[in-house]
Amino acid sequence: MNILLVNSILGLVVMLEGVFMLLPCLVGICYGEWSDVLIYFILSIFCIIFGTVLRIKKPSDNTFYAKEGFVTVSLSWIIMSIIGALPFFITGDIPCYVDSLFEIISGFTTTGSSILNDIEALSHCNLFWRSFSHWLGGMGVLVFILAVQPMSGGSTMNLMKAESPGPTVGKLVPKMQQSAFILYAIYFAMTIIETILLLLGGMSFFEAICHAVGTAGTGGFGIKNDSIAGYSVYLQNVITLFMFLFGVNFVFYYYILIKNVKEAFKLEEVKWYFALFIGAVLLITANLTFAGGNFFSNMQKVAFQVASIMTTTGYATADFDLWPSFSKTLMVGLMFIGACAGSTGGGIKVSRIMIYLKQVKKELFQQIHPRQINIIKMDKKSIEHSTVRSCNVFLMCYSFIFVISILLVSLDGFDFTTNFTSIVATINNIGPGLNMVGPTKNFAEFSHLSKFVLMFDMLAGRLEILPMMILLHPRTWRK
Amino acid sequence: MNILLVNSILGLVVMLEGVFMLLPCLVGICYGEWSDVLIYFILSIFCIIFGTVLRIKKPSDNTFYAKEGFVTVSLSWIIMSIIGALPFFITGDIPCYVDSLFEIISGFTTTGSSILNDIEALSHCNLFWRSFSHWLGGMGVLVFILAVQPMSGGSTMNLMKAESPGPTVGKLVPKMQQSAFILYAIYFAMTIIETILLLLGGMSFFEAICHAVGTAGTGGFGIKNDSIAGYSVYLQNVITLFMFLFGVNFVFYYYILIKNVKEAFKLEEVKWYFALFIGAVLLITANLTFAGGNFFSNMQKVAFQVASIMTTTGYATADFDLWPSFSKTLMVGLMFIGACAGSTGGGIKVSRIMIYLKQVKKELFQQIHPRQINIIKMDKKSIEHSTVRSCNVFLMCYSFIFVISILLVSLDGFDFTTNFTSIVATINNIGPGLNMVGPTKNFAEFSHLSKFVLMFDMLAGRLEILPMMILLHPRTWRK
Repeated sequence: MNILLVNSILGLVVMLEGVFMLLPCLVGICYGEWSDVLIYFILSIFCIIFGTVLRIKKPSDNTFYAKEGFVTVSLSWIIMSIIGALPFFITGDIPCYVDSLFEIISGFTTTGSSILNDIEALSHCNLFWRSFSHWLGGMGVLVFILAVQPMSGGSTMNLMKAESPGPTVGKLVPKMQQSAFILYAIYFAMTIIETILLLLGGMSFFEAICHAVGTAGTGGFGIKNDSIAGYSVYLQNVITLFMFLFGVNFVFYYYILIKNVKEAFKLEEVKWYFALFIGAVLLITANLTFAGGNFFSNMQKVAFQVASIMTTTGYATADFDLWPSFSKTLMVGLMFIGACAGSTGGGIKVSRIMIYLKQVKKELFQQIHPRQINIIKMDKKSIEHSTVRSCNVFLMCYSFIFVISILLVSLDGFDFTTNFTSIVATINNIGPGLNMVGPTKNFAEFSHLSKFVLMFDMLAGRLEILPMMILLHPRTWRK
Repeated sequence: MNILLVNSILGLVVMLEGVFMLLPCLVGICYGEWSDVLIYFILSIFCIIFGTVLRIKKPSDNTFYAKEGFVTVSLSWIIMSIIGALPFFITGDIPCYVDSLFEIISGFTTTGSSILNDIEALSHCNLFWRSFSHWLGGMGVLVFILAVQPMSGGSTMNLMKAESPGPTVGKLVPKMQQSAFILYAIYFAMTIIETILLLLGGMSFFEAICHAVGTAGTGGFGIKNDSIAGYSVYLQNVITLFMFLFGVNFVFYYYILIKNVKEAFKLEEVKWYFALFIGAVLLITANLTFAGGNFFSNMQKVAFQVASIMTTTGYATADFDLWPSFSKTLMVGLMFIGACAGSTGGGIKVSRIMIYLKQVKKELFQQIHPRQINIIKMDKKSIEHSTVRSCNVFLMCYSFIFVISILLVSLDGFDFTTNFTSIVATINNIGPGLNMVGPTKNFAEFSHLSKFVLMFDMLAGRLEILPMMILLHPRTWRK
């Protein structure tokens, strides 16, 4: 393990976090929250000093394998969270540090599960920091660093691989650093457009920014106790649209940028994602309308909720825990699927589900026609065996972590649906589940043990499991 | 598709079912249930004639590929069930044919889920037929035919492959037919021993036989409304022991028979199975004792319930739906794992879970030491790639069927826990779930659609999914 190089990158991460902490300072100045401004400012200085200290001892060699990539990414996220939780705790808005940690991990991992009963009691500084953590976590803090700071070849590739969601790395152009830059440029531009559209709908600048960064990262932290329910239909629809858009594979936007629109709409994953969304909206709307209500007003509500769950954002305008059993179950199903690879959304990812289905299709075909050779393809290119293998191992790790988590959480003695959906909601980085963790409830009731389990699941889910497992593997640390 | 050969084997299956229908006739004669005797007798004659008709047109060639194997096995089980349900319906004990079909499929697939509110109202003939269906389904009706009737090489292998549970075929000796014979010999002998031990505990001959065949097939249909709860502790312990023993890979008994006891206890899957059982019993006993009660009397109850669930039998002496959340969740976890491959139990199977874990271990190792080569081994032999692949595809098919089933069942509008565990209980061939399908409840409340979904799941679970999917695949039937 190249500890010095890992330390040096961690130093960068901490320094960057320090710089970003100046943003809530600005918010605080606007709203005259002086004590909060002071706290964020001191923490910011502390981060910059601490980061510099970590970088004092220069690494002698640049060896950086996959192992180093996984360890750096997991440690970055853990350190970022430990520091990022401090403002909530020190300002006293969240009096328990474990709860503060839960809240910020939920933020960085773009989960959006909260332990707060009264969100509106938070200061503007903290509300902003809470929402902004989604934006930072959505595309990834290391991808951000890669976009602005050149690194040696091995580290760029291995860091991207460990932090980007999906079975393959979203390589837009041959150079990784340039890919990272383009990704962030698209991300930034789309956030700005959403902010403007929200401003046009009558939101204040603060509200618009908070909701735009929360949507962009597919996070889900709102700034109101009733999430988005109190806003106008126009604002709800803008957010629906942008939740959906941020769940699309960013390769799609890159193709559109380079004016290859035809190629963009040919992307298999994106087509499936569109189909799944439309299918789910129609089925649930039909199910709800059968029980009562107007088809179109139901559809408006359903589109919001489906976009929110499928992209693993977690905003709410209706309590789907009150929907009929079929709709609720379909929502839980969508939680597992999640958004596209190469988007800011979580879950298993549409492309992985496709690879699983293609394997099943291939196996059935092979049993029926044993002498014919059949290759798994995506976008007309055959998928590498290592990609298929890593998808399969992902499913297994995912299942094991799921089972162990639900067992540990069940020690709190809550009902099966609560336990089950609390894991679904955190490991897929969604936010709300059913019953005691439904859209109008929160995670405050859980014990500290359960909260730590859920924090682990959020991190494992955001980093797609392998980095966290490699961090904890004893062999990683053996000489 | 070699339709004539498939037909001919189906004919054998139907004839065999006819012969076995004479057994309830004998029971009926003992208890003077003359109208039932007549019905079973007429059905028996009908089966023998129908089977002969199916075999009239002799197949011209013996081509028999994997495809034919899968189709024959699935069709056999479906025809067997359609005919096997008739006695319940005609005698009037189960007035609805769909319910009768549900009950017999639950029997043949050794599930043990029932739609009956009052089991004791059934005639002795029907009670016996219901329990005996477990015995027939446990080891497999085609394996039985193979054991007594020589067939051409291709068909023997492909039928065994399609009907035996587990990732690999339980080949005890090089000759498949001999393997089938040895399996049934062990199965028969163990059933006899259990019957004798139950008789010694004071059960009547009828009770002893019914419970022994129900245990042997890891089925779970009892003949009392309170399952096994009303019997003495001795009888409960005998059943616990035999449930556990029938969940062991039969290769273990074969090794013991050929006096290679050391080799038997070295079987990795068996060691894991023992460890899982002991671990689960200790954890749940601790959890229960913490809430109250004596450690040893709790352990006796827990051992029964864990053996019943882990081997996917489904007998009950206590209502685990009333246990604390952790114990309930652990029970649901055990439902997924199931028993050993090459046993009569269902579920995903211990050996598959091991192969999944070994793949995860290998992947982590490979990421940490990318230059070292690592091979997945079981019992010190490397596992073939095709076995690993089929295990992985199994997990995917299993998950897809699971998700679609739960969506369809949720149309009935019951709660999530009921829907979820009703699928867990049927696809893993267990019997009881939680809430509305808990150990003291039954499946009567479900709609016909849900019952058909659950019947499909029971068959798919027993035949390990692939045969049912190949039967329904349009390509199978294309020229």
